[in-house]
Amino acid sequence: MADTKITRRADDYARWYTDVIAAAELADYAPVKGCMVIRPNGYAIWENMQRALDDMFKATGHRNAYFPVFIPESFLAKEAEHVEGFAPEVAMVTHAGGGKLEEPLAIRPTSETIIWNAYRNWIQSYRDLPLLINQWANVVRWEMRTRLFLRTTEFLWQEGHTAHASYEEAEAEARTILEVYRTFAEDFMAVPVIAGLKSESEKFAGADHTYSIEAMMQDGRALQAGTSHHLGQNFARAFDVKFQNENGEQEYVYASSWGVSTRLVGALIMAHGDDRGIIVPPRLAATALAIVPIYRTDEQRAAVMERLDRLTAGFAGFGFHVDDREQHSPGFKFNHWEQRGVPLRMEMGPKDLDKDQVVLVRRDTGEKRFVPQDGLADEVGRTLDAVQAGLFRRAREFRESRTYAVDDLGRFNAILDGDAPGFLHGHWCASVECEDRIKAETRATIRCIPFGDAGPEAPPGQCVACGGASERAVVFGRAY
Amino acid sequence: MADTKITRRADDYARWYTDVIAAAELADYAPVKGCMVIRPNGYAIWENMQRALDDMFKATGHRNAYFPVFIPESFLAKEAEHVEGFAPEVAMVTHAGGGKLEEPLAIRPTSETIIWNAYRNWIQSYRDLPLLINQWANVVRWEMRTRLFLRTTEFLWQEGHTAHASYEEAEAEARTILEVYRTFAEDFMAVPVIAGLKSESEKFAGADHTYSIEAMMQDGRALQAGTSHHLGQNFARAFDVKFQNENGEQEYVYASSWGVSTRLVGALIMAHGDDRGIIVPPRLAATALAIVPIYRTDEQRAAVMERLDRLTAGFAGFGFHVDDREQHSPGFKFNHWEQRGVPLRMEMGPKDLDKDQVVLVRRDTGEKRFVPQDGLADEVGRTLDAVQAGLFRRAREFRESRTYAVDDLGRFNAILDGDAPGFLHGHWCASVECEDRIKAETRATIRCIPFGDAGPEAPPGQCVACGGASERAVVFGRAY
Repeated sequence: MADTKITRRADDYARWYTDVIAAAELADYAPVKGCMVIRPNGYAIWENMQRALDDMFKATGHRNAYFPVFIPESFLAKEAEHVEGFAPEVAMVTHAGGGKLEEPLAIRPTSETIIWNAYRNWIQSYRDLPLLINQWANVVRWEMRTRLFLRTTEFLWQEGHTAHASYEEAEAEARTILEVYRTFAEDFMAVPVIAGLKSESEKFAGADHTYSIEAMMQDGRALQAGTSHHLGQNFARAFDVKFQNENGEQEYVYASSWGVSTRLVGALIMAHGDDRGIIVPPRLAATALAIVPIYRTDEQRAAVMERLDRLTAGFAGFGFHVDDREQHSPGFKFNHWEQRGVPLRMEMGPKDLDKDQVVLVRRDTGEKRFVPQDGLADEVGRTLDAVQAGLFRRAREFRESRTYAVDDLGRFNAILDGDAPGFLHGHWCASVECEDRIKAETRATIRCIPFGDAGPEAPPGQCVACGGASERAVVFGRAY
Repeated sequence: MADTKITRRADDYARWYTDVIAAAELADYAPVKGCMVIRPNGYAIWENMQRALDDMFKATGHRNAYFPVFIPESFLAKEAEHVEGFAPEVAMVTHAGGGKLEEPLAIRPTSETIIWNAYRNWIQSYRDLPLLINQWANVVRWEMRTRLFLRTTEFLWQEGHTAHASYEEAEAEARTILEVYRTFAEDFMAVPVIAGLKSESEKFAGADHTYSIEAMMQDGRALQAGTSHHLGQNFARAFDVKFQNENGEQEYVYASSWGVSTRLVGALIMAHGDDRGIIVPPRLAATALAIVPIYRTDEQRAAVMERLDRLTAGFAGFGFHVDDREQHSPGFKFNHWEQRGVPLRMEMGPKDLDKDQVVLVRRDTGEKRFVPQDGLADEVGRTLDAVQAGLFRRAREFRESRTYAVDDLGRFNAILDGDAPGFLHGHWCASVECEDRIKAETRATIRCIPFGDAGPEAPPGQCVACGGASERAVVFGRAY
């Protein structure tokens, strides 16, 4: 149904998010608590995300593989931090084939353990390295509070798991992938992100250290949009994966792992959506152009449709859909495609035929232009590029307008509880105590310690909490 | 390791199959009984299968979606035949998030129930139909006897689930997809198949009737390579999915479902492989051309590599790989790529440089030809087409040589236990009694009742078991 009512963002942001998903038919809650059904409109976005990311993974030398959904309970326990991090979230299979299993099986919450168990057999020598593997899969984490796309019991993701002959190579890999993620977020999703290092408290369970990209949603909250972990030799030790190095010595293998998930669809909605619904960036839109023919009589219809046939024959460079449903009015169709976030609409009626023109309407700005039919495909392409760039620029300007340099912890809650919450750039002494205290008093966490020139100013200062020496400011925010 | 020893087919076909998979590094058994790890070489074949099938599904109007891996136990029980068919194979989650679940959750063995529960909310009117949805997913069936790719506890597949306003439309859909599967098997996998109807005993649990495509492996056994089910109104009734038809009446929706799985990788191996290993048809090969430079001195190496750089710049139409590993001999590399089933090999050494030629070696026939460097990309393309066609022809000739018209049940075991077992075309009276008796006495099942001109002769005859009247011959065989 195209006439779904959408709550205004200003009235209730959480409700707006749910309404947008319903209006665009992106996903439903499933009968199993916390699980979702990803409907075709939502899955089409995920598919395009997959295609773009997969191309980038392959261009950087990675290959796909598939490992079992079941992990023996004992495997999870082999790496101490890892089991502590995931044990509370795991779903267990205890019965199968009509009987009780000898050892319960975990449904994978992530696959480091089952994969490193396999790598033990695949890696003998430095010649077997690097091993650069990615998996597209479903994973399960039993969550108490769930939200469609953002946090669901089952979700879809990709998880890369790589093995290297040295710490430096694993580090380079983790950073290469973080850059792939940053490029994907900014160039495809049109979502600006801050790339950086997670604090010790926020790192992945079992990692040496974790990098992430952090995006700002329109309510000023942070969303961790992708993580890349340097695992050191932790999993190699746990699963006894050694290789013979170039000097003939046995050494534990170095590792990275990294992932993004269907949560990115939620990020897309919250970064770009407006009170009329989702806006899909052209580079991720299965339908980039919705075409609505306008007519009153059968004769007009025939003339308009004939011209459309001719014009659309040149539309090979982008996905388009001609909405020729006879039972709906043009106004109904405009609303229908707006709610589905199609980035560009084209209208053509009898008057346009006479003038050899069409009407193009941008979804992001509402701008409406008359455009000559001559050279139309190129103009549509240019306009889609403009929408893509415009969405990114708007999101970046929004983030800049919601970023605050703060040197006093006392100001945190005033900003975060105010009308324009956002990211706080503040100094931190690197102690867990101060991090915990800030979180307890403000519900803000350290989103990341940004790289050199990508984030807040580097000059040293004083920790916002204790006043101690701080090498550089970090990014604080309340997060999804 | 490229020097894996492969058992000869004639010595032990089952062992040959396992050896081929190990030699090509296609898959491993996982630590969980019956599960497999699909390694990058195996997954690359599956990915190309996915891509080709997905394009065909979309070209026939289908869209992808994703439904939860968990199915409430009670859902499975809603359709009587369905639960009877799947209950013994289901894996159950009983604990999650540190506690016991109120209702155990099945890991999907197939998704009809969870999907038709969703369709109840999506379908109100004939205008919502047809609903043409496909899902790429993992499914779990607890199997006692497993074999890599052919029968594993967890496997990957696609499952289409469509909803229609009439019996005839659902029937047309089931047949459309069967034709997609036939086209895919023959044109991409180069595996000839017999398309037809399954007998009542062999149909899907919950279907009105089931169609399948049946392929012959090199040991003469049948492999069901894809199924397409007309579900009638069975699941619509079970989940109360009604629509208002064009006359304003409420009616139950008609349905189809259909699927192919990673078992197709097993079919590919067993249809084309030889004593040196797997042969991947060019249209499914990530690497269609393996290039081995030949040289003794550094100078020769430099000259050969430089020429290769120039030649491969024109190789955009197919995947190729230049094996420039210095630690291995050309002979080692030939064997390496043969075991991986790369359909075409190119060699070039100093003498070839002088003569402006290369050597092309076909994986399927071993044929070795000197080919001019001028126009090489086109010649490689033509040769790959020839390999694709040659594999299909060879498999079809093999099937024809192993197909027997049999009018006497007494001959079944003589053929099936003999040196050249295969498909038996024989008459059947359509009674379950005779079908059961034939199976009990010969271990042969009715693979399918083939369509009109695609299978054995249609003229009526006498049932091989009881001598009763039979409208047409059917295909019997022992199956995987």
